[in-house]
Amino acid sequence: MKSNISGFPEFFPNEQIAFNKVVQSISKHFELYGFVPMDTAAVERIETLLSKGNDNEIYGLYRLSDANSKKDIGLRFDLTVPLARYISQNSGNLTFPYKRYQIAPVWRGERAQYGRYRQFYQCDIDIIGDGELSICHDAEVISLITVVLSSLNIPRFRTYINNRKILSGFIEPLVKKGNITDAIRLVDKISKITLEQFNDEMKNLLNNENDITKINTFFETANDFNIDSTLAWLYSLNLGEEFRIGVQELDKVIQILKKLGLNDQYLKIKPQLARGLAYYTGTIFETNFNDIKDMGSISGGGRYDNLTLTLGNDKQYPGVGASIGISRLVPKMIDLGLIDTYKKSTADLLVTVQDKSLVSSYMKLANKFRELGVKTETYLQDKPLGSQLTYANRKGINFVLIANEMEMLDSKAILRDLSNKKQQIIRTEFISSDIIDVILGR
Amino acid sequence: MKSNISGFPEFFPNEQIAFNKVVQSISKHFELYGFVPMDTAAVERIETLLSKGNDNEIYGLYRLSDANSKKDIGLRFDLTVPLARYISQNSGNLTFPYKRYQIAPVWRGERAQYGRYRQFYQCDIDIIGDGELSICHDAEVISLITVVLSSLNIPRFRTYINNRKILSGFIEPLVKKGNITDAIRLVDKISKITLEQFNDEMKNLLNNENDITKINTFFETANDFNIDSTLAWLYSLNLGEEFRIGVQELDKVIQILKKLGLNDQYLKIKPQLARGLAYYTGTIFETNFNDIKDMGSISGGGRYDNLTLTLGNDKQYPGVGASIGISRLVPKMIDLGLIDTYKKSTADLLVTVQDKSLVSSYMKLANKFRELGVKTETYLQDKPLGSQLTYANRKGINFVLIANEMEMLDSKAILRDLSNKKQQIIRTEFISSDIIDVILGR
Repeated sequence: MKSNISGFPEFFPNEQIAFNKVVQSISKHFELYGFVPMDTAAVERIETLLSKGNDNEIYGLYRLSDANSKKDIGLRFDLTVPLARYISQNSGNLTFPYKRYQIAPVWRGERAQYGRYRQFYQCDIDIIGDGELSICHDAEVISLITVVLSSLNIPRFRTYINNRKILSGFIEPLVKKGNITDAIRLVDKISKITLEQFNDEMKNLLNNENDITKINTFFETANDFNIDSTLAWLYSLNLGEEFRIGVQELDKVIQILKKLGLNDQYLKIKPQLARGLAYYTGTIFETNFNDIKDMGSISGGGRYDNLTLTLGNDKQYPGVGASIGISRLVPKMIDLGLIDTYKKSTADLLVTVQDKSLVSSYMKLANKFRELGVKTETYLQDKPLGSQLTYANRKGINFVLIANEMEMLDSKAILRDLSNKKQQIIRTEFISSDIIDVILGR
Repeated sequence: MKSNISGFPEFFPNEQIAFNKVVQSISKHFELYGFVPMDTAAVERIETLLSKGNDNEIYGLYRLSDANSKKDIGLRFDLTVPLARYISQNSGNLTFPYKRYQIAPVWRGERAQYGRYRQFYQCDIDIIGDGELSICHDAEVISLITVVLSSLNIPRFRTYINNRKILSGFIEPLVKKGNITDAIRLVDKISKITLEQFNDEMKNLLNNENDITKINTFFETANDFNIDSTLAWLYSLNLGEEFRIGVQELDKVIQILKKLGLNDQYLKIKPQLARGLAYYTGTIFETNFNDIKDMGSISGGGRYDNLTLTLGNDKQYPGVGASIGISRLVPKMIDLGLIDTYKKSTADLLVTVQDKSLVSSYMKLANKFRELGVKTETYLQDKPLGSQLTYANRKGINFVLIANEMEMLDSKAILRDLSNKKQQIIRTEFISSDIIDVILGR
C-alpha cells in the first residue's frame, strides 16, 4: 500500500485483488441473508452531515471554476447518516423491515499528522423497521457478523456484547445530574487510559467519590464470569427499571445466539462496553481478535431507536446494524500472510504467441478457454517466448499455453504448469473438462 | 431513480440490485481477460486534475472545521487522469502490459441546469505498455467490449471504428495553419448540428472554401460502404504519410476483429468519428444502439500514446482503453424492461415464523438453506402469517416456508411458490438438492 496524497492510501494490483476477494466474500454472505446493496451518493447536504451534532471532520465542496463558490454540500463521513437521510426521503418506496448493506468509501478531513486515513472503506449492514423492529434482529445481525468473519481466514476472535440500558442504568444514579454523557464517554475510553486516570476523571463526575469502588467492582466482576453466570449475576442486581430492561433484552439476544451456536468461545458479556455515544439505545457489541491487540475492533454495532428523528422525521425508524472495518482488516490479513497476494493478474492462464502472423488464432484460442470459465490473457507484445514466461511468472499466472506455427495449424499446444514445470500436450479443437479442472485447480 | 441533491441520482433497492447485476456481469468478463481491479482514491491533487488542460468542472475540497481552508485537492472528474497519475507513481511496482479495470463514481461540478449528472459511474478498461504497446491490444479491447455488451440483454448495437491519423491526415492539409484542433472539434460535433451549420463553420477554417465538397464527399462515401470496400477505398486515396499509416493501423485492427467474428453486422468504419480531442492518437471507436437514437454512445474508447507525458514523466506509457456508460445504460435497460426489477430483496426464500417461542429454530432452519446456497430471509417481526406473505410478495421473494409449532417439532414445513401458489410438504432435517433446485429455478 502506498499513499498518493497523505491519508489517501491506494493498493497495488495484487493487494487490490485480495481486498476485492474479501469484499466479495462478505457481500455474498450479506446477500445470503437477503440484504440488498445500497449505493448512496458520496455527497450530502452539509446540514444533513451536521444533523447528528458529531464533530467528525467534514470535507465541503466548492467549484474550482467559480472562486468563492463554497457549496452547501460535502462528502459523507460515514454510511449511517446517508442511510438515515435515504430512509427519511424514500420510506414510501421501501418495504420494512428494510435490510441493506453498503460497502463504500467515506472521507474525513482530519489533519494528516493524526496518522489517520482521510479516505477509507466502511462495510455496513443495517435492518430498519417502520415504527417497530423485533429484538430478534439484534441477534440476527450478530450471528451474521460471526458467520461472515468465520468464513474469512482470520485468527480467533470474540464478540463482546452489552446493552446500553445496562450501562446507563448502572451509571446514571451514581453521577451528578447532567454528567451521564461525560461518564459514558469516559467508560468508552476505559481500555485506552490507565485505571488511575479513569478513576480520577470518574470521581469528578460522581455524586459520591467512594462510589468509584462500585464501578470498578462492577466492571471487574463481569470479566471473571462466563455468559450464563454473568447473566445470572446481572439479574441478581437490583439497579432499577432501565437496568432491568437492559438485562432482559441482553438475555433475549443471548438465548437466540446460543441456540445459533455462539458459545463462550465466541461471545462474552462486557458491561463496560459503551461503543461511543452516537445512536445506540440498546444492544451494543464489538468483535476483537483474541490474540492481536494492535488493531482495535474488527467489527462493531448495535441498536439505535431514534436515528431518523434528528432529520426532522416525526416517525420512528428503529434499526440495528453492524460495521466491519475492512480498511484495517484486509491490510492486517495481508501483513499476517493470511491471504494470497502473489497474483498481479486475475488470469490463471497465459496464451503465449510465437507466430505473430497467427495472432488472431491465438486470441481465438484464448476465447475458447474464457468460454469454459478460465481467466486467460493472451501475450500480444512482440517478445520472445522467454520474456512471455517471465511475464506470466511476474503476474502470478500459473499456467501457460505454448504453441508454434506447426502446432497451431495442427490444433495442438503445450500446457505448462509454471509452479512445477510439469507440462502436457493438449488438443485445442476440443478442450476437455479435465484440462479445465487442472488449470482451475479443481 | 430519484435525486437526493440535484444531479446526484440514487437508485431504489430493486434498481440497485439490477445495476449491481450488470456491473458484476461486466466485471466478470473483464476478469476473464485478466484485467485487474483498480480502486484509486476519489481525491487527486488539483494540479493533477488540471494537467490535461481540460475544462471539466472540478469540485475542490475544503475543511468545514477550518474556514478558508481551501485545499489543493479535489474530486476526480474521470478515471483516466487517476490512471495516468497511478502509473507515473507506481510504474516500478507494475508488470507491463498493465491491464486494469475500474468501475467507480466520478464527479463534475456542473451547474444543475445543464441537466447533467454531477456524480455518475464510469466503467473503464485500459491496457498500458511500458514504452511500447502492440496494436493487437486495440483489437483485444474492441473485441472484449463487444463480448461484454453481447452478454447483456440489450438491443442491437454496432461499433464504429476509425483512426485518428486518418481523420487528421485528411483534414490537416485542407485547413488554415493552426486550425486543425478546431476542425477536429467541429467534426466531433457533426451529428449534433445540421449539415449547413457544419459547412458554414468548416468553411471558415479551410484554406479554400471549395474544399468543403471534398470533406462532405469523404464522409458520405464511407457511409455507403461495408468494411472491406471502405478499406479498399481508403487505400486508394493518396492523402499523405499520416493518412496512409492510419489506414494500415485500421486495417490491422480490423483484420483481427474479423477473425474474432466481428462482421459488418457489428462493425463499421466511420472516417468522421473524432471522439473528442483528448488523449487519442490512433484507433478510436464508439458503440451505439442501431435503433435507439436518444442515448448517445453505449461505449467508446481508443488509443493514446502520450497519456503520462503531461504529468512530467519522461517515459512513454502508450495505452488503449474503453469505457462503458453504465450510468446511462442501466436506467435505459430498466426503462425498456430488459432487466428484472421486481426483486426488492436478494432473497429467494422467506422463512415465516408462526411460533415466536421457537424463533431460533426458524433462524437455524434459514441457516440450513443459506448453507445450501439459497438466499434466505427469516421474518422476525411479530406479525400474522398473512402479513408475512405480503412482505414476501412486496419484496419479490418467490418462495416461502411455512411451519407451525407442531410441524417445526416434527421437522416438516410447507414450501410455497408464491408465483403459482403451488406448495409441497418438505422434510427439514435433510433438505434435498431437488428442493434447492426448485427454489433456485434450476
